[in-house]
Amino acid sequence: MGTHSPWSGRFEKPLDELVQRFNASIGFDQRLAEEDVAGSIAHAKMLAAQGIITRDEAAKIIEGLDSIRNEIRAGTFAFRLDREDIHFNVEGALADRIGAVAGKLHTGRSRNDQVALDVRLFTRQALEQLQGDVLNVIDALIDRAAEHTATILPGYTHLQRAQPVVLAHHLLAYVEMLRRDYARLSDARGRLAESPLGAGALAGTTFPLDREAVARNVGFPAITRNSLDSVADRDFALEFLATTSILSVHLSRFAEELVLWSTQEFGFLIFDDAYATGSSMMPQKKNPDTAELIRGKTGRVIGHLVAALVLLKGLPLAYNKDLQEDKEALFDAYDTAHDCLRVLEGIVRTVTFRTDRMRQATTEGFLNATDLADYLVTRGLPFREAHGIVSQVVLFAERAGKTLEQLTLEELRLISPLFDAGAQTALDVDQGVLRRDLPGGTSPRRVQQALEEARNWWSVEVGRQTAADTQG
Amino acid sequence: MGTHSPWSGRFEKPLDELVQRFNASIGFDQRLAEEDVAGSIAHAKMLAAQGIITRDEAAKIIEGLDSIRNEIRAGTFAFRLDREDIHFNVEGALADRIGAVAGKLHTGRSRNDQVALDVRLFTRQALEQLQGDVLNVIDALIDRAAEHTATILPGYTHLQRAQPVVLAHHLLAYVEMLRRDYARLSDARGRLAESPLGAGALAGTTFPLDREAVARNVGFPAITRNSLDSVADRDFALEFLATTSILSVHLSRFAEELVLWSTQEFGFLIFDDAYATGSSMMPQKKNPDTAELIRGKTGRVIGHLVAALVLLKGLPLAYNKDLQEDKEALFDAYDTAHDCLRVLEGIVRTVTFRTDRMRQATTEGFLNATDLADYLVTRGLPFREAHGIVSQVVLFAERAGKTLEQLTLEELRLISPLFDAGAQTALDVDQGVLRRDLPGGTSPRRVQQALEEARNWWSVEVGRQTAADTQG
Amino acid sequence: MGTHSPWSGRFEKPLDELVQRFNASIGFDQRLAEEDVAGSIAHAKMLAAQGIITRDEAAKIIEGLDSIRNEIRAGTFAFRLDREDIHFNVEGALADRIGAVAGKLHTGRSRNDQVALDVRLFTRQALEQLQGDVLNVIDALIDRAAEHTATILPGYTHLQRAQPVVLAHHLLAYVEMLRRDYARLSDARGRLAESPLGAGALAGTTFPLDREAVARNVGFPAITRNSLDSVADRDFALEFLATTSILSVHLSRFAEELVLWSTQEFGFLIFDDAYATGSSMMPQKKNPDTAELIRGKTGRVIGHLVAALVLLKGLPLAYNKDLQEDKEALFDAYDTAHDCLRVLEGIVRTVTFRTDRMRQATTEGFLNATDLADYLVTRGLPFREAHGIVSQVVLFAERAGKTLEQLTLEELRLISPLFDAGAQTALDVDQGVLRRDLPGGTSPRRVQQALEEARNWWSVEVGRQTAADTQG
Amino acid sequence: MGTHSPWSGRFEKPLDELVQRFNASIGFDQRLAEEDVAGSIAHAKMLAAQGIITRDEAAKIIEGLDSIRNEIRAGTFAFRLDREDIHFNVEGALADRIGAVAGKLHTGRSRNDQVALDVRLFTRQALEQLQGDVLNVIDALIDRAAEHTATILPGYTHLQRAQPVVLAHHLLAYVEMLRRDYARLSDARGRLAESPLGAGALAGTTFPLDREAVARNVGFPAITRNSLDSVADRDFALEFLATTSILSVHLSRFAEELVLWSTQEFGFLIFDDAYATGSSMMPQKKNPDTAELIRGKTGRVIGHLVAALVLLKGLPLAYNKDLQEDKEALFDAYDTAHDCLRVLEGIVRTVTFRTDRMRQATTEGFLNATDLADYLVTRGLPFREAHGIVSQVVLFAERAGKTLEQLTLEELRLISPLFDAGAQTALDVDQGVLRRDLPGGTSPRRVQQALEEARNWWSVEVGRQTAADTQG
Repeated sequence: MGTHSPWSGRFEKPLDELVQRFNASIGFDQRLAEEDVAGSIAHAKMLAAQGIITRDEAAKIIEGLDSIRNEIRAGTFAFRLDREDIHFNVEGALADRIGAVAGKLHTGRSRNDQVALDVRLFTRQALEQLQGDVLNVIDALIDRAAEHTATILPGYTHLQRAQPVVLAHHLLAYVEMLRRDYARLSDARGRLAESPLGAGALAGTTFPLDREAVARNVGFPAITRNSLDSVADRDFALEFLATTSILSVHLSRFAEELVLWSTQEFGFLIFDDAYATGSSMMPQKKNPDTAELIRGKTGRVIGHLVAALVLLKGLPLAYNKDLQEDKEALFDAYDTAHDCLRVLEGIVRTVTFRTDRMRQATTEGFLNATDLADYLVTRGLPFREAHGIVSQVVLFAERAGKTLEQLTLEELRLISPLFDAGAQTALDVDQGVLRRDLPGGTSPRRVQQALEEARNWWSVEVGRQTAADTQG
Repeated sequence: MGTHSPWSGRFEKPLDELVQRFNASIGFDQRLAEEDVAGSIAHAKMLAAQGIITRDEAAKIIEGLDSIRNEIRAGTFAFRLDREDIHFNVEGALADRIGAVAGKLHTGRSRNDQVALDVRLFTRQALEQLQGDVLNVIDALIDRAAEHTATILPGYTHLQRAQPVVLAHHLLAYVEMLRRDYARLSDARGRLAESPLGAGALAGTTFPLDREAVARNVGFPAITRNSLDSVADRDFALEFLATTSILSVHLSRFAEELVLWSTQEFGFLIFDDAYATGSSMMPQKKNPDTAELIRGKTGRVIGHLVAALVLLKGLPLAYNKDLQEDKEALFDAYDTAHDCLRVLEGIVRTVTFRTDRMRQATTEGFLNATDLADYLVTRGLPFREAHGIVSQVVLFAERAGKTLEQLTLEELRLISPLFDAGAQTALDVDQGVLRRDLPGGTSPRRVQQALEEARNWWSVEVGRQTAADTQG
Repeated sequence: MGTHSPWSGRFEKPLDELVQRFNASIGFDQRLAEEDVAGSIAHAKMLAAQGIITRDEAAKIIEGLDSIRNEIRAGTFAFRLDREDIHFNVEGALADRIGAVAGKLHTGRSRNDQVALDVRLFTRQALEQLQGDVLNVIDALIDRAAEHTATILPGYTHLQRAQPVVLAHHLLAYVEMLRRDYARLSDARGRLAESPLGAGALAGTTFPLDREAVARNVGFPAITRNSLDSVADRDFALEFLATTSILSVHLSRFAEELVLWSTQEFGFLIFDDAYATGSSMMPQKKNPDTAELIRGKTGRVIGHLVAALVLLKGLPLAYNKDLQEDKEALFDAYDTAHDCLRVLEGIVRTVTFRTDRMRQATTEGFLNATDLADYLVTRGLPFREAHGIVSQVVLFAERAGKTLEQLTLEELRLISPLFDAGAQTALDVDQGVLRRDLPGGTSPRRVQQALEEARNWWSVEVGRQTAADTQG
Repeated sequence: MGTHSPWSGRFEKPLDELVQRFNASIGFDQRLAEEDVAGSIAHAKMLAAQGIITRDEAAKIIEGLDSIRNEIRAGTFAFRLDREDIHFNVEGALADRIGAVAGKLHTGRSRNDQVALDVRLFTRQALEQLQGDVLNVIDALIDRAAEHTATILPGYTHLQRAQPVVLAHHLLAYVEMLRRDYARLSDARGRLAESPLGAGALAGTTFPLDREAVARNVGFPAITRNSLDSVADRDFALEFLATTSILSVHLSRFAEELVLWSTQEFGFLIFDDAYATGSSMMPQKKNPDTAELIRGKTGRVIGHLVAALVLLKGLPLAYNKDLQEDKEALFDAYDTAHDCLRVLEGIVRTVTFRTDRMRQATTEGFLNATDLADYLVTRGLPFREAHGIVSQVVLFAERAGKTLEQLTLEELRLISPLFDAGAQTALDVDQGVLRRDLPGGTSPRRVQQALEEARNWWSVEVGRQTAADTQG
């Protein structure tokens, strides 16, 4: 079957069937149905207010759109492939209901500016939702961190035990990453909040539209400044995908640690049974699938970013059909990030930390070696020399099969006469943590302060989000 | 609702509901249903042949699988989310039909080697299909090229008119790209043709399986050589995606030219109405949407390649859940390439070349300047000097608002006394094309030869594909 | 030759020679030399202020660092591979000059927080420079746009002529893109302005450092809040690369148009000889290499973004050696964007627009068809029906080989009796441009307003940049 | 200073200085110097053989090129930026030496086909070198595997202990990956072995070149079939980068395991001191930097692949300046892969496996649970039910704090009366490994066979490489 489309007046043949499907976007842009209706209602109201259509015509159109919206929400609206995209599906359904007056809705409008508005509305909502999701994960992290301001575990560099840190400090590192993500999502949200409607196909329109009125109606504080750019621009999609990719990288780093920490070898945590799965062959297995999937899904989000960048590379002005390809990447990146954040929140809230294993792990690996070097510095030695001496101490201890604490003062003094009784104190792991008492450091006091600062920030942002929801 | 899964014996809690959906792959791996059943039938037959299960048990299992396959083909099989993935869906449905004996099917098998087989079977079929699609586009290109061995148009470098070429030569350039794609698809198909079944979860199995028998049954000439690699390897997916990405780049280059050539400015071709669309606002528009979409879809294929590479980067042995994420990228890259090739074939077969415009375009832009330099070389001048002299001629002609043919011999001799009557002959565009008579060159004679060589190659490959289909 | 490194105390063998080169970063991180010295001076001053080293020691260290900085600036500093990286090169050179006291500089510091500071300092400067470059291109665009507020050319969608626009409007579309880039660069600059020094290797340090003092000294308004995150975080690099990638996509779109517009077929512009090149074989060629390179270099910037995302994916806390790989991507993306922007500015300032060709191009392609439909709407017809009627008019004109203006009123009325004398007026191209007189539209009046708004914005931002330079 | 270039005849202004640098490729394509000279010598010989230049002229040209080649090899050749690229540098230097006759070298040739040949020659050598590097790593892996056919360690899925495997089996999994890489490198090498010389700028040339003779001279068995494709094609670069990316993913997986296995937690291996480094702050650290860098460098190789795909996307025929951007990606991907393979070989050869720790690790984690289920299957139970019963056993043992071996028969029989004395045998780890005795399985016998097969394959391929070297 061929198509008879609203644009087909000058065509002498219907579309090839395969092409009809290839060309149609209704398979995925139906997701924009509510945004499309909202934009159309705003447009119709404005047309009437400007006298371009009558109040009566507008009322009919809006009533029809309302009934369509209801069906969309109820899931009973029948999307039709032969109507190509969400715009023609809504417009066509409107004509089915109210007749020829429906044809007045598209006055001064093109699908080019229409879809630009729809996608911006979707992206705004997606950004808001992800901001909320990020706040929820931060909330969970702060909650769990608050339980563990005195739990000591090894901090790692190069995945080698480095220096002891408190677990809350470790969890707060992820809070920092997520706070930057939150800020980037917020910037992106601010930047997209301009209404493109009125740009027409590319050059504006000859009708006296009130673009600001439409913008106010859909909740955007501003209008775009250039009609060509309005229909050609997909920066908001690129910025969404870039921001989500960076976020995904953070989630993958956390996921990697969850996988590592749940190994028999590390043994630092146990996944709740509701967040782990088993094996079809090996009856003993309990696998951290949720964390692995979060890690694995990083690939698809980055892939979508690349897809969108490739898509736009080298496209001349203004609208090109290639732009239709922006949507699936956007939708899937959003769904992925949304799901991953929610699952991660659940993991964080339910995971059991094995604090005994963590503590135990700090005793092997000479994590207090830096403290010994710092101690030598307080005895007057340049750090570089102190580092060299303690390296010798470590080598000696390793060969002797001892920890640094187990070395006698005599043994230490064999390597440097500067060592005295203070050396033993310097090697105490708990003391070492306490001594890292500068802003951003791991001492329980500083971590407690960081926790309070984070909680305060969170409260302010949650309040702001709630206020925005109420308004919007 | 939580799940009660075949792996859940040691779990004390059901999965979180969100996790169940997050973890489940049945939403997309149902596409592997036929491959999964085929693999299971091969496994069951072998288990019986090896005496691991009885002939009767095998018969029941196979009968059950057959009925499941029929439902899958008919589209009546009910996939269940609580059965997680395609493997448990098939196994569960089998148990519903034949009872506890269904539980014997998974003897000596894990979902890890099972999914590795399923995805390989899918990829083999996808590669075959794309090879066929590529042959079809080549067929269309050869057909159209055969019509145009004497149609002259400008060849371009830097999108500036460079030298005249014949249209068939231009079209055959794409045949070359596609032949390399075909070869890469073929290499990838050969490389994946190893059966992983028998690798178990990662280490093989304690049952005396006959792995070669299973391989023969599913049409693979060999088995994989290492069980850990068998379940951890996704090279076949990476290679599929890399090959399809390069193919997509070729398609995007062709699509770009189709878009360019259909502009009013170039005017070299007209899309058939069945392959073009219009505008919702601008009644005069006829847009090359099909070509733009082919160009735009390059992004998503490259994006999927990136996704898969990111996915696998840094994963330790053997199976990790991340690998579940390979499928959607693979499926969508295949669908995209398949559709693009079919649409492109249609475009090529139906497009109208405006040979008058092409010819006309060869008259402006000094496309015969190189011929004039070559002519000076035959008069004894080093090419580098000849190039310099003709540059002066071009500058002179440009200022005089003339083509090179329009310059008089006197004018030419003002610049170099080496010019004589032969210069005029050298400038004849048709002669210039005829003179490029070396292998791979654009002279109609050479292009005719290239056309025959291409058609012969095509015939051989089509025969090979048909033979493979009959066999397989 | 093996290495004897400041870290090698506990090692019993030198590094393998190949490994020494593989591991060393001095080949590229020497670019951070000035940043490294600046950070070290700030650290030394603070150590003295806090009484951790004496005033005398600090004076010696700073004097030594100053002399090193002078050599770096003069290009006479000898970087040594056996000193591994920029940090050990500077520290080693310092020890060569001032002896063992140099060893006190590294007190309370690790290369992990040191490099984090260095790269942040570099990125801040890179962001500032790119902001300046973007302002310069905007300046050039505004200048050229100001010359062409009445130059009419076809606006394109799908690269098909769509509706006439003025050239200034087209150029201002790129100003819009660049303004968003500028805002993103600015956001990124704000977000990175936190000093990580004091994070030590990962856990902070036992010395009573004054982190805020160091931050103030290097011009950062804040310090990072978590030591683990401070050494593990490369968000500022990711955000730089993402922002630069989006910028590059904009540049590639403009470059594509420059290439198109300079073809013989479009003929809308001529590159200045200083921005074009020729062919080694074809004497007539003048190629838009500069624009092609700008377009082509998009790939490498996007490639660097991907590289950095892949790099970080799945890395556990805190510092891992993988992070060393961030630098070359960052440096090259910066250099590429910097060069492309500067070359583009030159192109824009020197290109000759062929306004006659532009004007001529608006006469073919029925660019006024929408105006005719709009006119029918003012006659009472729903737009959808008007669109259908004008489609018929276009088809009629196309077959008759006429433009719409050339149709007689009688011919028009054959298709619809609604047409009257006003139709002819509606079809006037200049009138059509004038009528698109809404905010963001292409009417010369609106474009003039947009131009003024852009110039005002530019002036404010240039002022802001200059103020920042004076301060910083 | 501006440039006076061999192409600049028709230009009235020199290049802008910044543009000269921006446009020039000599900064990086000097790496193609030897390839360029080799191609030119082949071209000159053929020109003489075809009578296009005289024998004397050819002799002079070749003598000049030989002296240039000697200087290049000696590192004394002075590359000049004002000579733009490697082609003009060589041609210019030739003219400096032998005068105007040098200008005859470019007869029937363009830089477009010249660079296509140069890059193909480079890529062929790079592919050969990487094949050799891969064989060396395989050699090292086989050597180390041969030492450990009886060393038992846990095999992992989801990074959870799954089933015991022998270390040789684990190492051979990487041999499998590398063998596929080797095959892909080999396919790519075969596919690129076509000489493009004679394609001219895009259309061939009017001189009677003998393209096959040139091909033979540079060691290519065939010539390209289409001149437009010859200068527009960069498939060999894409295929090189795709192949190298997949290889890099393999290396990153191995590197990840090396990092994991060298942690205190796993403790499965110790890096040789020549392949590890220390910390500037923490005296005890020994970090697996080499493996981390191999893992991290995956990003840049994938980034280069993306860069090249983006570069080519949407480029019309034939040559476009964008293609100049292919080289740096290619060079750096090659260097990176080459270095990573060589460093990895060194790591493999020198690493100390801690076989005691490996063995110890097999005792915890119920790695023999599948064996117990398989045992129940031999007692007549369907596997699915056996899996369920053993899950109960595992849960029981976990709560009792026992391993499965430590459970008494009575305890087992509480869960299922099917258990008898055979259960204890089934649980023996060594027996379990022995029983996985099918092709590709982990039993020492099968691993020994796999080892021999791998060594045989290696010997054949090493022989083939050596033969190729002697020939080429």
